[in-house]
Amino acid sequence: MADIGALLSPNAVAVIGAAPDDSILRGRILHVMMQHPFAGAVYPVSRSFDEVQGLKAYPSIEALPERVDLAIMIIPAKFVPDELERCGKAGVKAVQILTSGFAEEVGEDGAKAQQRLRDIAERYDMAVVGPNSEGFASTKVALCPTFSPTFHNQTRPMVPAWRKTGHLAAVAQSGGIGFAFYDRGRPKELPFSYVATTGNEAVINCFDIIEHIIDKDDTDAFLIFMEDVKNPETFRRVAEKAMRAGKPLIVTKVGKSAAGERAAASHTAALSGSYSTYQAMFRRYGIIEGADTDEMVEMAMGFSLFGHCLPKGKRVGIVTGSGGGGGWMADTLSMTGLEVPTLDAETRAVIDALIPAYGTSQNPVDGTAGAVREIGYANLLGMVRDSPSVDAIVGITSARRASTYEDERENLSKLARETEKPILIWSYTNPHEESVTSLSQIGLPLFTNSRNCARTLYEMAEYRAFRERFLRAPEIKSGANADQAIVGKALDAANEVLCEYEARPLLAAYGIGDGGARMANSAQEAADIAADIAAPVALKVQSPDILHKSEAGAVALNLKSADDVRAAYDRIMASAQAYNAGANIHGVLVQAMAPAGQEMILGVNQDEKFGPILMVGLGGIYVEVLKDVAFSPVPFGADDARRLLDRLKGVALLHGVRGEAPSDVDALVDLMVGLSEFAADFGDKISEIDLNPVLVHPEGQGVSVADALIVKSSKA
Amino acid sequence: MADIGALLSPNAVAVIGAAPDDSILRGRILHVMMQHPFAGAVYPVSRSFDEVQGLKAYPSIEALPERVDLAIMIIPAKFVPDELERCGKAGVKAVQILTSGFAEEVGEDGAKAQQRLRDIAERYDMAVVGPNSEGFASTKVALCPTFSPTFHNQTRPMVPAWRKTGHLAAVAQSGGIGFAFYDRGRPKELPFSYVATTGNEAVINCFDIIEHIIDKDDTDAFLIFMEDVKNPETFRRVAEKAMRAGKPLIVTKVGKSAAGERAAASHTAALSGSYSTYQAMFRRYGIIEGADTDEMVEMAMGFSLFGHCLPKGKRVGIVTGSGGGGGWMADTLSMTGLEVPTLDAETRAVIDALIPAYGTSQNPVDGTAGAVREIGYANLLGMVRDSPSVDAIVGITSARRASTYEDERENLSKLARETEKPILIWSYTNPHEESVTSLSQIGLPLFTNSRNCARTLYEMAEYRAFRERFLRAPEIKSGANADQAIVGKALDAANEVLCEYEARPLLAAYGIGDGGARMANSAQEAADIAADIAAPVALKVQSPDILHKSEAGAVALNLKSADDVRAAYDRIMASAQAYNAGANIHGVLVQAMAPAGQEMILGVNQDEKFGPILMVGLGGIYVEVLKDVAFSPVPFGADDARRLLDRLKGVALLHGVRGEAPSDVDALVDLMVGLSEFAADFGDKISEIDLNPVLVHPEGQGVSVADALIVKSSKA
Repeated sequence: MADIGALLSPNAVAVIGAAPDDSILRGRILHVMMQHPFAGAVYPVSRSFDEVQGLKAYPSIEALPERVDLAIMIIPAKFVPDELERCGKAGVKAVQILTSGFAEEVGEDGAKAQQRLRDIAERYDMAVVGPNSEGFASTKVALCPTFSPTFHNQTRPMVPAWRKTGHLAAVAQSGGIGFAFYDRGRPKELPFSYVATTGNEAVINCFDIIEHIIDKDDTDAFLIFMEDVKNPETFRRVAEKAMRAGKPLIVTKVGKSAAGERAAASHTAALSGSYSTYQAMFRRYGIIEGADTDEMVEMAMGFSLFGHCLPKGKRVGIVTGSGGGGGWMADTLSMTGLEVPTLDAETRAVIDALIPAYGTSQNPVDGTAGAVREIGYANLLGMVRDSPSVDAIVGITSARRASTYEDERENLSKLARETEKPILIWSYTNPHEESVTSLSQIGLPLFTNSRNCARTLYEMAEYRAFRERFLRAPEIKSGANADQAIVGKALDAANEVLCEYEARPLLAAYGIGDGGARMANSAQEAADIAADIAAPVALKVQSPDILHKSEAGAVALNLKSADDVRAAYDRIMASAQAYNAGANIHGVLVQAMAPAGQEMILGVNQDEKFGPILMVGLGGIYVEVLKDVAFSPVPFGADDARRLLDRLKGVALLHGVRGEAPSDVDALVDLMVGLSEFAADFGDKISEIDLNPVLVHPEGQGVSVADALIVKSSKA
Repeated sequence: MADIGALLSPNAVAVIGAAPDDSILRGRILHVMMQHPFAGAVYPVSRSFDEVQGLKAYPSIEALPERVDLAIMIIPAKFVPDELERCGKAGVKAVQILTSGFAEEVGEDGAKAQQRLRDIAERYDMAVVGPNSEGFASTKVALCPTFSPTFHNQTRPMVPAWRKTGHLAAVAQSGGIGFAFYDRGRPKELPFSYVATTGNEAVINCFDIIEHIIDKDDTDAFLIFMEDVKNPETFRRVAEKAMRAGKPLIVTKVGKSAAGERAAASHTAALSGSYSTYQAMFRRYGIIEGADTDEMVEMAMGFSLFGHCLPKGKRVGIVTGSGGGGGWMADTLSMTGLEVPTLDAETRAVIDALIPAYGTSQNPVDGTAGAVREIGYANLLGMVRDSPSVDAIVGITSARRASTYEDERENLSKLARETEKPILIWSYTNPHEESVTSLSQIGLPLFTNSRNCARTLYEMAEYRAFRERFLRAPEIKSGANADQAIVGKALDAANEVLCEYEARPLLAAYGIGDGGARMANSAQEAADIAADIAAPVALKVQSPDILHKSEAGAVALNLKSADDVRAAYDRIMASAQAYNAGANIHGVLVQAMAPAGQEMILGVNQDEKFGPILMVGLGGIYVEVLKDVAFSPVPFGADDARRLLDRLKGVALLHGVRGEAPSDVDALVDLMVGLSEFAADFGDKISEIDLNPVLVHPEGQGVSVADALIVKSSKA
């Protein structure tokens, strides 16, 4: 495996293409590097200059006085592959390519050139990042090979000196956005260990870098901007590793819309893929999605300062000197999914003794501005923190003045140090720079946006709960089914489309009931089977060429007498012929009518990137009109299945909301788990499975799969 | 009417309770006032001091050397009423009371004291603002009687000198939030004309002040924070006036959650009322709701700079030098409800000739950083602005450096001055203070938050469309029905609960079909009516004591023969007796079974503040499980009714989404309009109307109101 350590902490660096003029990119990058005290040597490599910005320049990578771990490359695209080859020969272990004009370019030449980069990187086992990237910053070694203006003429240290823990890394395909995370976070006194930008990801992708940083264990949360996932296996491995290590991944994914997809494709040649699949993958690993830089950075701030004591629940106490701010925050927290309960009587009595009659202790605790000053902000926060009614605190403040927290610095620091419940501060006014710094030194996160504050707390609570489940969950096994080999062989032997009668026996091996359906090849045979079943039956044509059987008039329901069955058989055959004269008709399936139940739809679709994704929805109009469906990768366990159902807006229908008996959710969950295992075991062979409709009967009476279809993958 | 002009532009001001020590509120307020060059005299009134902060102090309001328009009062609550009386006698026209401890206090004394303030204000016709307020700022006259730290030791002018138009006013019940709007907006170089805070609103409320400012016409948009509406008539009048004048109201309303309601009640004694009703009122008048200060201030910025050329549609062109930023913005715009179409071929050809192959002209137009510099940002923005494919532009930039826009200042200014489509700028990095100033001078709004940028554009387009409709709409008249007097008398004479047979004739006068229902008082009478109807009938008990007829077993459906009708009659009477032995039973209603149709529910409920509010929803599970309902004040016209239906998530069901025939939406709209007129005409007499279910038949076949109920107001 290529050595990303050589990228982020090299012995020395060559800058290939460095120029004297720092108003152009090729000059700026060296200029920026020289502004930071990287301990190793920096060697300009230039064909045109002997000296660049006061440093001796070398005509080629081979001419350097020592072997360097890292080369930064900013030369015209057409020279890049040969230069990369030379780097490989010279023993360079990592190369960051900033040059644009590869796969993101219109036409095929760029893609070919990018393939060449991949080949060379592989040959020399080099960690090649880019092309079309904006460089990186590795603050621990004060190395900033980037032309981002963010690291240009910095007036403050790269990292606030007092922040020894809670480091963040920004990892992004987009250079602009990657450095924007830093640029937005640094003024909030957030400590960044790394900013890495990966551009086209010809070789190394975001998750390779994240994995390296997780393993290094000097970073506690990640801000990630991605246009696509280049390598699903890496993504899965790293996402799981991050959750096990308790290092949150806060992600935004571009390409949610047609225009966004277009932009990503043209920007870094990303194939963004289905956003709903990405969302399902993010949920699978507890990855937190953010919608804008401010929100993502403020969420990271919460984890940076209170990642070690995430809230145990969603009950929040509010302390405020502004009544309006308190009310607004109470609404905001409530609308975000948190609770703002009235405090317990004991806590209220303590507070009531201290505040004026026009204040209130109920929650929000509105001490009034004057009383807060008298009691002390730290004291009041501490009193609410001690209430058994809350899991976390939001303190509202106006951080507008420079000295707001100086009087209470010691008490606030003690509070921040000793609390076992997170305390988040929201300033309704623009905070003064010095107040930002003093709160950071005190150890309390200062939010400027009320919704971001609320969402951060929500995600902190969710993350804790998710991680506890994740660590506790038994490993879900695929490949555990005794009949896997038999089913696999049957699948291999089958045609591309497996009609219900062909699909059912295979699904049955995974506990998906076959409903006692049997095939008939004549009207009389159908009547005989119906007589055996001795209950009203349904007849359905079985043909790989007629997938919409109802539309073709090739279904008959609720048939009771032998005559009816025979007549229906003939009618179905005639309709099927009329609908598609050339259709290959295998026969007619006869099965008992399913009793009534809540209609559901289950399906599996093959995602090009992430493999089989299971979908569940409430049937009929719910799916068609309201798109009330939920997705998950496979396989999954019973708890996951229940949570998946809980994501449906109409889930209450399963619980008998209209006075009906609750549905047999246990049986539905078993069905979902079985289907997820089937999909996992044969993910490479199938492109689609439809169980539609599935009828969920009242509790204890199971489910009926009323129709089933499997379409094999054309690649299998 | 009390003179709010005397508040905001007084000849001179008395500060009653002023103190020398500017570290306490009573001292700070005078200190802040003296820092700004208000032209009139400022008189401290103090019992304890002869001189306060260098000004001669007076022992009482009567002792001042001249009559003053305005008194600021910051003295203990118990002295306030008497002092207010003295102000009235001394000819003071406006008083801002900052003192707390009135209706917001626990117990009844505060409420009584507040009533006294109201009485005195009325007697002297004084504009009394507060109590429990934080003062105000009137920047045109440089008057800032407030202890808000926002106006304390300001380092820049109150208003950017170059901003002659697009002024904003912040009007808030909460002082902290009111001044926070200013505090967040001023660093963005937004020009505020007023910041007014109203506290408990004992006399003057937010909308009184807004009305004065609209009439004065020196302000173009409003930022409003409210805990409740004190006077619904004022609210309605002012909201309509604002829309007619094209001055957007950007509002946040606290009390959306139980905790928020609690906070508002304890903060300013606000009775927040039902949030869904507030939302319906906001929508009625095109009022824009904001969720946090940043979002509200950034929306106001858009209107401040481009209120004169709001977008004609929702198609947005994006110009970017950052590919990642472009993709993210494209997604953000799309998810906000805007469109990001591919540009027309002509525009693309012009752009393609100028940008490198790894850029793109499709939209987002990613010129790449280098090319944007060469072509010129203004030029590129202008090219996209000229495209017939777009109604507005978002320009993406990194405003991090101080001098970013200096080279192009002239071109950008020309662009901003001449454009007829709004151009919004988003910086993905933290903008430099000087860049903020230069863009403001250029005349382009600089957004720091991508979602706020998108939402601003969306709301600008919505506002334009709404206002065009609003100005065009015929005035909807209530009281136009010829039978109003007759129906009114019948309602007066009726009992509290009007059963279906009583309600139907009244509703019929408003075009709400009575379905040919007739009352029967014996089994034979029922059979005779059924014979007349000559179609399957339904029988329903009619009793004000049995509202849940089905639950009582007192409904029979689909009766065909005379025997069945007679038997059903007897069964219904028996069940009704069994269900409620003491029930007053008026008889049994016989009516033709309604044909099938899409089930809807219509209702009217009396809101304590805003009067009758009409509700419409898709029936059955949609209402019960998905709460898929929409609300509107009454009366309304056909267009409003259609838009109300469009707000239902399941509206597609009315359009025959599953291949069924589309429903008769015209008939449903007529029904809604008729019901809205009924509710408007008798709003004071009724507390509830239920039409449930209403069946909407296929197009051209009308609607059936299957049940109807009116409950009169106990107050009527």
